[in-house]
Amino acid sequence: MSGPAGRYRLDLAYDGTEYAGWQVQPGRKTVQGTLEQVLTRLDGGEAVHVRGAGRTDAGTHARGQVADFRLRSGLETGELAYALRRMLPGDIRPQRVKAVDDSFNARRDALRKCYRYRLDRSPTGDPFLARFALHYMRPVDRAALGAALLRLPGRKDWSGFASSKCTVENRVREMFEARYDEPDGNEGWFTFTAEGFLTHMVRNIVGTLLLVAAGLQEPARLDEILASGDRRLAGETAPARGLYLWRVDYGGAQATRS
Amino acid sequence: MSGPAGRYRLDLAYDGTEYAGWQVQPGRKTVQGTLEQVLTRLDGGEAVHVRGAGRTDAGTHARGQVADFRLRSGLETGELAYALRRMLPGDIRPQRVKAVDDSFNARRDALRKCYRYRLDRSPTGDPFLARFALHYMRPVDRAALGAALLRLPGRKDWSGFASSKCTVENRVREMFEARYDEPDGNEGWFTFTAEGFLTHMVRNIVGTLLLVAAGLQEPARLDEILASGDRRLAGETAPARGLYLWRVDYGGAQATRS
Repeated sequence: MSGPAGRYRLDLAYDGTEYAGWQVQPGRKTVQGTLEQVLTRLDGGEAVHVRGAGRTDAGTHARGQVADFRLRSGLETGELAYALRRMLPGDIRPQRVKAVDDSFNARRDALRKCYRYRLDRSPTGDPFLARFALHYMRPVDRAALGAALLRLPGRKDWSGFASSKCTVENRVREMFEARYDEPDGNEGWFTFTAEGFLTHMVRNIVGTLLLVAAGLQEPARLDEILASGDRRLAGETAPARGLYLWRVDYGGAQATRS
Repeated sequence: MSGPAGRYRLDLAYDGTEYAGWQVQPGRKTVQGTLEQVLTRLDGGEAVHVRGAGRTDAGTHARGQVADFRLRSGLETGELAYALRRMLPGDIRPQRVKAVDDSFNARRDALRKCYRYRLDRSPTGDPFLARFALHYMRPVDRAALGAALLRLPGRKDWSGFASSKCTVENRVREMFEARYDEPDGNEGWFTFTAEGFLTHMVRNIVGTLLLVAAGLQEPARLDEILASGDRRLAGETAPARGLYLWRVDYGGAQATRS
């Protein structure tokens, strides 16, 4: 069934292991590129452009990425969801399809994003998490880590945690939440919620927090990195495989059901 | 540290996606072959032979595979476990290493094996389970499925569920347990415990049970397949990616901690 042309919001989850990240790159398999190919086929061959709320890195996953695009054919949402499930590979799974006002922009309209970083804390390593978590066996100093996490929320310049590849000029973002939980002895989760993130910001923060958790840096190191903006003071970039774009929050009509 | 030569029991878990199964095959990457390469390197270059309790198929996983092998160098178990964790790829993880009597044989001494088969029952499909479960969305008729499962336990000839590749002559095995659980709405697990299994037996049973669950076959079909030994009456072989060698039980000194 086809109606008038229209814009759609697509919520999707993906295993990013086999992708060179979200964003289209010539000659590379990307999540955005894969979606655009499938949607272009579905829409009769005229190029469909997909916007995503977050540009996830190569190897980074998503539980709740949000995208939007316009189709000329105005497919009914149930039909579109069905077609996407059939045509997309198993490592990219549409979670929800919604018809939205043409003014909707998944990136610009996002109020907050939540990223989570997963640690495999099992002593032996879980082979089913080899793509999906960082195996981290050292003891975690929860008091020191908690003290470091307390330094993150607030409106700050995050230059010290941005990749040298980050091209954004304004690096001030408000962070609302920075947490670490071990729901059971075998997994650890960092959770960060902010109005926006810079390139590699979460992975650089996690790399630094792991130094604090291991007793190799003081919690105050976070303040120094934030104050100086000096990336060299931060820890190594944590591997992409532990990182998930977990949720994107919108206001008004686009507010997500939680 | 090296002591006298000795035999070891290795419990291991693996993601079988990238392997052509357990058993060594010329020119293919297999789990047994990967272990033998690493152990041969560790033991100074003389070929180490590894025996496994179960010969898992290509793409099939293990939570609790048990292997045994003999090393000339008599490494201390902690040291051996550490070396294996370092040298094996992330999709094969040693869970426990134990020095055992030279008479131990992981295959021959196994009293019971437990295989489980995982269904992803989420409506949209979980991309993080694409390698690890069969996405199965249809309604499951629990009453019919339960009636079919009740027909499995007992001492039976399983020829009707064996692959044409199965070369074993005696196809009589006792099955102790056949269950299906949905611990939450998003996952389903078949569990089969028996003194032994034939090639593709679990996957052929699951393929048939899914026909019953979908209302396409009567529960009594299980009896017909068992009585006739006719593979053509059974359902399609369920994909390897949902299958796990879950546990191997031994008696006496090798009894597993559960």
